[in-house]
Amino acid sequence: MRLVLDAMGGDHAPAAPVEGGVLFARAHPGHQVLLVGDEAKVAPLLGRLRPPTNLQVHHASEVVEMDEHASTAFRRKRDSSLRVGFELVRDGQAEALVSAGNSGAVMAGGLLTLGRLPGVERPAIAALFPALKGGGRCLLLDAGANVDCKPSHLAQFAVMGEAYVRARMGVARPRVAVLSNGEESSKGTPLTREVSGLLRRSDLDFVGYVEGKDLFSGEVQVVVTDGFTGNVVLKTSEGVGMGVIGMLRQAIERRGGLAEKVGAMLLQPALAGLRRVVDYAEYGGAPLLGIQGVGIVAHGRSTPRALFNALGAALAMAEGGVQAELTRCIGRAAAWLPTHPKGKRATDAGVSD
Amino acid sequence: MRLVLDAMGGDHAPAAPVEGGVLFARAHPGHQVLLVGDEAKVAPLLGRLRPPTNLQVHHASEVVEMDEHASTAFRRKRDSSLRVGFELVRDGQAEALVSAGNSGAVMAGGLLTLGRLPGVERPAIAALFPALKGGGRCLLLDAGANVDCKPSHLAQFAVMGEAYVRARMGVARPRVAVLSNGEESSKGTPLTREVSGLLRRSDLDFVGYVEGKDLFSGEVQVVVTDGFTGNVVLKTSEGVGMGVIGMLRQAIERRGGLAEKVGAMLLQPALAGLRRVVDYAEYGGAPLLGIQGVGIVAHGRSTPRALFNALGAALAMAEGGVQAELTRCIGRAAAWLPTHPKGKRATDAGVSD
Repeated sequence: MRLVLDAMGGDHAPAAPVEGGVLFARAHPGHQVLLVGDEAKVAPLLGRLRPPTNLQVHHASEVVEMDEHASTAFRRKRDSSLRVGFELVRDGQAEALVSAGNSGAVMAGGLLTLGRLPGVERPAIAALFPALKGGGRCLLLDAGANVDCKPSHLAQFAVMGEAYVRARMGVARPRVAVLSNGEESSKGTPLTREVSGLLRRSDLDFVGYVEGKDLFSGEVQVVVTDGFTGNVVLKTSEGVGMGVIGMLRQAIERRGGLAEKVGAMLLQPALAGLRRVVDYAEYGGAPLLGIQGVGIVAHGRSTPRALFNALGAALAMAEGGVQAELTRCIGRAAAWLPTHPKGKRATDAGVSD
Repeated sequence: MRLVLDAMGGDHAPAAPVEGGVLFARAHPGHQVLLVGDEAKVAPLLGRLRPPTNLQVHHASEVVEMDEHASTAFRRKRDSSLRVGFELVRDGQAEALVSAGNSGAVMAGGLLTLGRLPGVERPAIAALFPALKGGGRCLLLDAGANVDCKPSHLAQFAVMGEAYVRARMGVARPRVAVLSNGEESSKGTPLTREVSGLLRRSDLDFVGYVEGKDLFSGEVQVVVTDGFTGNVVLKTSEGVGMGVIGMLRQAIERRGGLAEKVGAMLLQPALAGLRRVVDYAEYGGAPLLGIQGVGIVAHGRSTPRALFNALGAALAMAEGGVQAELTRCIGRAAAWLPTHPKGKRATDAGVSD
């Protein structure tokens, strides 16, 4: 497999992608890493790391910045690392792309360059949350691609999310839910109520509404919502998780007794483990589900380790027949799901980070 | 001051309200606590606690249950503890009400029994979040009362939230923001964009969009959103916070070495402090802003301690001239804020827990 890694995307680019790419290439000598970005910036960093031969640099002179309008910037910057990277995938020179750059632009690029899987109205960003009891995981989609969603969009997110969790995570029969402001069916918005009506007619294991806290309960594996709410939830949970860890540290330091210092030292391994679980970047990034190819959105703050994991996720998704399963399930869903194939394109509708 | 405490509201009712009420009455001999609820259930519990004379029981035979439709149940159950309690406030026999019951019903009851402050279109539930760096606080509204919101509703939430934070928390010039899926003004939904337009014309210190993580950053003091998103955010952050604490415990127990056990023991005070900050119930509940009277929604899981704190918050709000300040600010806002006084009543529009 040949994997594109956007060398210019993310807060720590190009250093973090360069190092993450080298780590991955070394660990996977049977696969290729294509580092796409400004050769003048990438080469000096690479020189010091003595890259293996299965890592190559592919030059691209431009960068889509984090604060640019996603689809506009992607369209205008014809030699951006992101666009050149996606074109390598489109032209069959690579099987997957990973970027820690502007996630709206990654989504726009996937749509514009690779297109949608047959029958998909809107691709979604799928973010994996760790269960905080037991060892499960919960996939939230859409985590930020589509701010305005119709019921059929969310129903397709459920179908794609369920297929992904089965195919990639080995859960035989994932439980699917709609995110709402309460579990009773009288709660929710017109959107959540209509989606629930659709999903009740589906062959998915649909359990109805769940609340924000249930993302971490381990009791459901797929939760759907619009990209606005999904993004707010993602960033809220990240904020709390990282904040709590910081606060625990602060409390230890402020109290400052010898006992606390010793306690904190002894707890370092547990704290590090906690941090790894809370920081969703460690999970290997969020896949775009519904595009004609494999694209992974890594966190903007991604470290080399996080990008290493994201490449691993890209590899697994490219190898594992996930795309075929998504396509099959979207096709089957047409039996109960009315679709709007002539709907507005997601890239024009406020693709978001 | 005379404070109504709903003896039948919450997961641990009537035991927790009875105990919390007794604690509060003992600590505040100059004030009155009216425990409203089923005398047959309350009296035996009370007997054992030797209640002070400034605590009295006021009988009410019915209970609005957690899973009932809020405004319907409030209307139908004429002798519910919540309704009788609000009527005591309406009739001048008490100055404030605290309930850990169905929060939608508390909102509905406030609206139906006490009515709105002059000029207020929709009251909101205001939830206080702890900053996870520094010592600040951030007020989020609406935390669940109004699922469908117009731009003018959110603008009024901003006005009321700002007034509350100034009057109650002593912040001279609170910074106000709109919750969105990114900080750039190109992000958001039609609702968030229109609200931003309104708030830019206001005399508030409006900083634009913030993301979910900024609720905990200490950099903004008032964040407005619709009640659906607000409720999802509230429950997500509660889920992460409590889950992280549980996970830390689990990690310590699983590793199980003597070192970790000693470390955990030494860290108990810090962990307890953390729990107190993360569990927003400890803050004394969420005030209803915009009703003609003081109503506090306590968490359903409230302990006696949490209800003690909620009574303290009710007392402070009833004493502190907060209502007058809210009314003044809503009046002043009419200069820049077009309102829709004939809008649909919030109680008919999906009041939520």
